[in-house]
Amino acid sequence: MSGKVFLIGAGPGDPEYLTLKALRVLRDADVVVFDRLVSPEILAMVPPDVRRIDVGKAPNAHAVPQDRINAILVDLAARGLTVARLKGGDPLVFGRGSEEAAALAEAGIAVDYVPGITAAQGAAAATGIPLTHRGLACGVRYVTGHRARNRPLDLDWQSLADEETTLVVYMGVANIAEIADRLTAHGLPADTPVMAIANATTPREQRLVSQLDRIGADVALGGLEAPVLFIIGRVVSLYRELPDCLPVAAMLAETRVAGHG
Amino acid sequence: MSGKVFLIGAGPGDPEYLTLKALRVLRDADVVVFDRLVSPEILAMVPPDVRRIDVGKAPNAHAVPQDRINAILVDLAARGLTVARLKGGDPLVFGRGSEEAAALAEAGIAVDYVPGITAAQGAAAATGIPLTHRGLACGVRYVTGHRARNRPLDLDWQSLADEETTLVVYMGVANIAEIADRLTAHGLPADTPVMAIANATTPREQRLVSQLDRIGADVALGGLEAPVLFIIGRVVSLYRELPDCLPVAAMLAETRVAGHG
Repeated sequence: MSGKVFLIGAGPGDPEYLTLKALRVLRDADVVVFDRLVSPEILAMVPPDVRRIDVGKAPNAHAVPQDRINAILVDLAARGLTVARLKGGDPLVFGRGSEEAAALAEAGIAVDYVPGITAAQGAAAATGIPLTHRGLACGVRYVTGHRARNRPLDLDWQSLADEETTLVVYMGVANIAEIADRLTAHGLPADTPVMAIANATTPREQRLVSQLDRIGADVALGGLEAPVLFIIGRVVSLYRELPDCLPVAAMLAETRVAGHG
Repeated sequence: MSGKVFLIGAGPGDPEYLTLKALRVLRDADVVVFDRLVSPEILAMVPPDVRRIDVGKAPNAHAVPQDRINAILVDLAARGLTVARLKGGDPLVFGRGSEEAAALAEAGIAVDYVPGITAAQGAAAATGIPLTHRGLACGVRYVTGHRARNRPLDLDWQSLADEETTLVVYMGVANIAEIADRLTAHGLPADTPVMAIANATTPREQRLVSQLDRIGADVALGGLEAPVLFIIGRVVSLYRELPDCLPVAAMLAETRVAGHG
């Protein structure tokens, strides 16, 4: 008899942001298959007797290809195991959860989803920057700033350059200068505030407050550790300690607000 | 000495979608202030000795105005109480959490946020419809379909009519016909699939699969209970049981997939 695979969102990093269901499934699982966006703090929540498989890095330091991950999941479940497939954030927001689900369904394996707090929400809760706010942003949009090798960023800049919508860029650290240039070229004001936040909700959290015409240069100075998320839009002006004059180096040294949590 | 207010996302309805932090704060609180989008299943998680204040409905059945809610929160915290302010979904995604935080900050009250699974994520996990998926949607966008009395819907239709982005409409049940008309007028194909999902992740969940040129008429037939969320875009085509020919009445009778959970 086949086992089952739970496609689980681990949230942004803080283990207390796991859902009750995620914790229950992790405790009941035979094996946990996780990738590199799952924080060490969350892995510490997995009971010691549950087997762990790291598909974030193969021994040669390359990530395991998606079709190999799919095959691992099918194989484990076919042996009757209950599999917790643990992903950073939410499995259905840039998580490729639906690709894994399709492979499992094709093999006749039962699948269930457990949603997770996505990085944008974690960054918002950590900083107090809302994703929507009356008068500042009537909606929010998540895009990825990653691009395939040798290919241009394929985004609808005209549509993205919308002052009324908060724009959250996942996986954009390598291309943020180009993203910012395109957004200003399509009409977003150069002084639109931007928050870059690395490792949000973990003890390694770093924040950098900038604006559209400076964010590329600020990030290029280095110091932000992946994963980095960008929140672009008027809502960033609500950041409670907006320190316009603080040098970038000082900002990078800023860690989580004491007592936050 | 002042107390503290935790602005907590309760998630879409399923009590197992609460975060570990949300549950801890609810158990440690002196008082819980909640509104109408918090499901009875979640309220059942609040310990019996914690005082409850319902600001979703006043005795005359009108909602408590926002400034009155702010005053209640300030008053409770000023008396030294630990206040759990429980909101449906996520407090920083259409949750007005940042408005309450501003009022509390002005009164010198300490605030902390606890993120929650927003309705779009709950609906995705329940139905298996991803919010992003390679080749179908490279991003996702959340908007509200609510409008102030006697005012037109103030949305950027040209930007919203984007086949590459999943569009999720919160609070749109009253205006979905107009929303669908505007989206098709601005270029979204008339046969773009739409999922309407009411009370997602609760025992009262209802689903209706339709398409852009029919969703207004389908919803007008009645039967969906608030709150209703709409997922619009190619990703809906992945819905595992897409029953093109099933009459609306039968769809409305569909409840949560057995064994899901």
